[in-house]
Amino acid sequence: MRIYDIIMKKRDNEELSKEEIKFFIDGYTDDSIHDYHASALLMAIFLNKMNERETIDLTEAIMHSGETIDLSNIEGIKVDKHSTGGVGDTTTLILAPLVASLGIKFAKMSGRGLGHTGGTIDKLESIKGFHTSLSTEDFIKNVNDINVAVIGQTKNIAPADKKLYSLRDVTATVDNISLIASSIMSKKLAAGSDAIVLDVKVGSGAFVKNYEDAVELATLMVKIGEGMGRRTMAVISEMAQPLGNAIGNAIEVIEAVDILKNEGPDDLRELCLTLGANLVVMAKKADTFEDAYNLLEEQLSNGEALKYFENLIDAQGGETNFINNYDSLPKAKFIEEVFPLKEGYIKTIESDDVGIASLILGAGRENLEDEIDHAAGIYILKKIGDYVTTDEPMAIFYTNKESSIKDAKKRFHSAFEYSDESIEHPKLIKAIVSKDGVTKFK
Amino acid sequence: MRIYDIIMKKRDNEELSKEEIKFFIDGYTDDSIHDYHASALLMAIFLNKMNERETIDLTEAIMHSGETIDLSNIEGIKVDKHSTGGVGDTTTLILAPLVASLGIKFAKMSGRGLGHTGGTIDKLESIKGFHTSLSTEDFIKNVNDINVAVIGQTKNIAPADKKLYSLRDVTATVDNISLIASSIMSKKLAAGSDAIVLDVKVGSGAFVKNYEDAVELATLMVKIGEGMGRRTMAVISEMAQPLGNAIGNAIEVIEAVDILKNEGPDDLRELCLTLGANLVVMAKKADTFEDAYNLLEEQLSNGEALKYFENLIDAQGGETNFINNYDSLPKAKFIEEVFPLKEGYIKTIESDDVGIASLILGAGRENLEDEIDHAAGIYILKKIGDYVTTDEPMAIFYTNKESSIKDAKKRFHSAFEYSDESIEHPKLIKAIVSKDGVTKFK
Repeated sequence: MRIYDIIMKKRDNEELSKEEIKFFIDGYTDDSIHDYHASALLMAIFLNKMNERETIDLTEAIMHSGETIDLSNIEGIKVDKHSTGGVGDTTTLILAPLVASLGIKFAKMSGRGLGHTGGTIDKLESIKGFHTSLSTEDFIKNVNDINVAVIGQTKNIAPADKKLYSLRDVTATVDNISLIASSIMSKKLAAGSDAIVLDVKVGSGAFVKNYEDAVELATLMVKIGEGMGRRTMAVISEMAQPLGNAIGNAIEVIEAVDILKNEGPDDLRELCLTLGANLVVMAKKADTFEDAYNLLEEQLSNGEALKYFENLIDAQGGETNFINNYDSLPKAKFIEEVFPLKEGYIKTIESDDVGIASLILGAGRENLEDEIDHAAGIYILKKIGDYVTTDEPMAIFYTNKESSIKDAKKRFHSAFEYSDESIEHPKLIKAIVSKDGVTKFK
Repeated sequence: MRIYDIIMKKRDNEELSKEEIKFFIDGYTDDSIHDYHASALLMAIFLNKMNERETIDLTEAIMHSGETIDLSNIEGIKVDKHSTGGVGDTTTLILAPLVASLGIKFAKMSGRGLGHTGGTIDKLESIKGFHTSLSTEDFIKNVNDINVAVIGQTKNIAPADKKLYSLRDVTATVDNISLIASSIMSKKLAAGSDAIVLDVKVGSGAFVKNYEDAVELATLMVKIGEGMGRRTMAVISEMAQPLGNAIGNAIEVIEAVDILKNEGPDDLRELCLTLGANLVVMAKKADTFEDAYNLLEEQLSNGEALKYFENLIDAQGGETNFINNYDSLPKAKFIEEVFPLKEGYIKTIESDDVGIASLILGAGRENLEDEIDHAAGIYILKKIGDYVTTDEPMAIFYTNKESSIKDAKKRFHSAFEYSDESIEHPKLIKAIVSKDGVTKFK
């Protein structure tokens, strides 16, 4: 088999066999196939597309390019969650203990963030003493004991995906549904869970801009997951504006705890309950979505979810006193109220710009080696549909770099458009996609 | 300007600007743009195509990626010729002195061959003492003195083309008309002549398989040349079988001398006269193609063309006695008659297989560092339309490697198909393409 012939085949819009796809991924992983081969093939795939069968085979080949995690020593159904990325997305911190509190096993491997804010691991590291570098034995023991553990991705998971993603990123071949779906699903499948819920964001702040594309991507990922023998569902949620109110690290931890205390912003709560309800159904702890949703609401109001959160922090060495006293979390030296530049109803919020403003304040990293300022971030007080005046703050900035505030403000304000006429608050959940089809929300 | 945006633009089927194309070629030449960028862009160009304007700009950018030759110290109209490659193609050895004998300046820069047989330089090196490494001063002096000189390509001509071609060759992006045309024309334009005749081969033995594609390629190259201010014409010729009878180096020199003595095979003679007549018209030494053709026939029959060949060999240090005594050229130790495996009319000859058989005998090189055996080659006695019997030889093999004969025979025989019914001898010249359009031959 020769990579030349594989490139030529896809160039000529022919279907690649499972063996050809595996030959490409294995060769690219072991460097016998070069970047220039891969980028020609990626462009041919981008322009001529892959069908469902090819995409499933691509996912499987990428999944097997490195280690796969064996969770068979954990009893029961193991669940996992993936989000296609958003600004201010704190769902994992809430979802993991929430679902675990119903006896469902949440063995979570998370990444660090490269972008506006930290990843789940970065957020958790706001908590004094908390560590995410558990041995495999301790990881499995913790999940068996308290149903939940969150560790950093230390193993060699899907190395082909890392190489492919870096290459796609510099050759304009990112936005292809087969390449996106295989990239996401290969890692999820390698992580070993039995049931996966996918949070597919749609809208101006997401990389999928319209509903139809989101449904197509979600449907393909569900098919890949189910095709590989895992229960898989997807929630399509609006990313017209940042999720919740907090964008940062420590302040997102606070927001998560608020939700677990049955408080906090409605949109973040609703998304966690919706994602969670799908996991509960797939884990067979409820028959219907509604039953599952009600069960989870109960876990928030009766304090069980919060208890599991406390267990999680404690089991991984974290001091838990912050749960009742947020002052023990990292605190910013500079706290600044930000006022609207004009009056009116907020019409649109470019989430990316808000994210970048937060990055400027120190909450994210531009390069992998950058240090994150856990205290930095933005707390948004006004969102789409709210009426603002110039004498009432619309956000609070947190930073340890006073000099960054000016630039951050400029970027933050550029995110907002206003209207004189009243604007509806956007609906968050658009649809749920399962192997049986799409359930549209009204 | 960023290469990412340029790739994205062509990916999205948009037209690239002159500046964008130049940015790509300059960056790729100086290594600031990587192979993986270039191969993604080449695949996007392959699939989404380039229009005429983009192709002309690409050609110009490649032409200026290295040195361009200044022939202004040579008086009169300087002409050049390019062939898209064939098997047994000895035209330059004939065309150069033939045209020069009419006072037209043929300042020829030639390459070495990588493939079935040697290039023009390799063929000429069959001649004792002949050298092709002239200084620029001597090159220009010779052309001014005797109208003709042939040197090896020593200057840094179109380095971007070398890089691009190597990359296209391994990423399945060779067969795109814009990439082919710009590759050929950039080098011809950099070589500095005023008028160019292109020999575009079509058929099973050529890389352009059908007539329509050949006309399209020829038309585009003529437009590029004329667009860059050079007179340009193209001859479309059939490559259904090897040209002439000799495939090798010394034996092709003999065949060229035969033609210059007004003997030799009709097809090779006709092609040289046709290519030459176009150069004569463009050099304004005749008003019509017919007049030019007659003039050139006269130069063959009156011995003038042969005289200029002798001058060329002599001026570059070659011993000229071989012209009247072929025995002084390199001779093969092993000469073997090859007989048909069955009787019948020859229906098809796969030129490539005949070329590879000749390579096996030692006439070509597989790698650039390989030594060529100037004595090796194949002399074909029977061509398409001829009736063969198993007791009459169809070819003669020449080699210094006896062990190669068996493999070469096998490959040679695989090139032939036979018919019981009589087969027409194929017409060689299909059309002439000029800036005024296509003149089809009957």
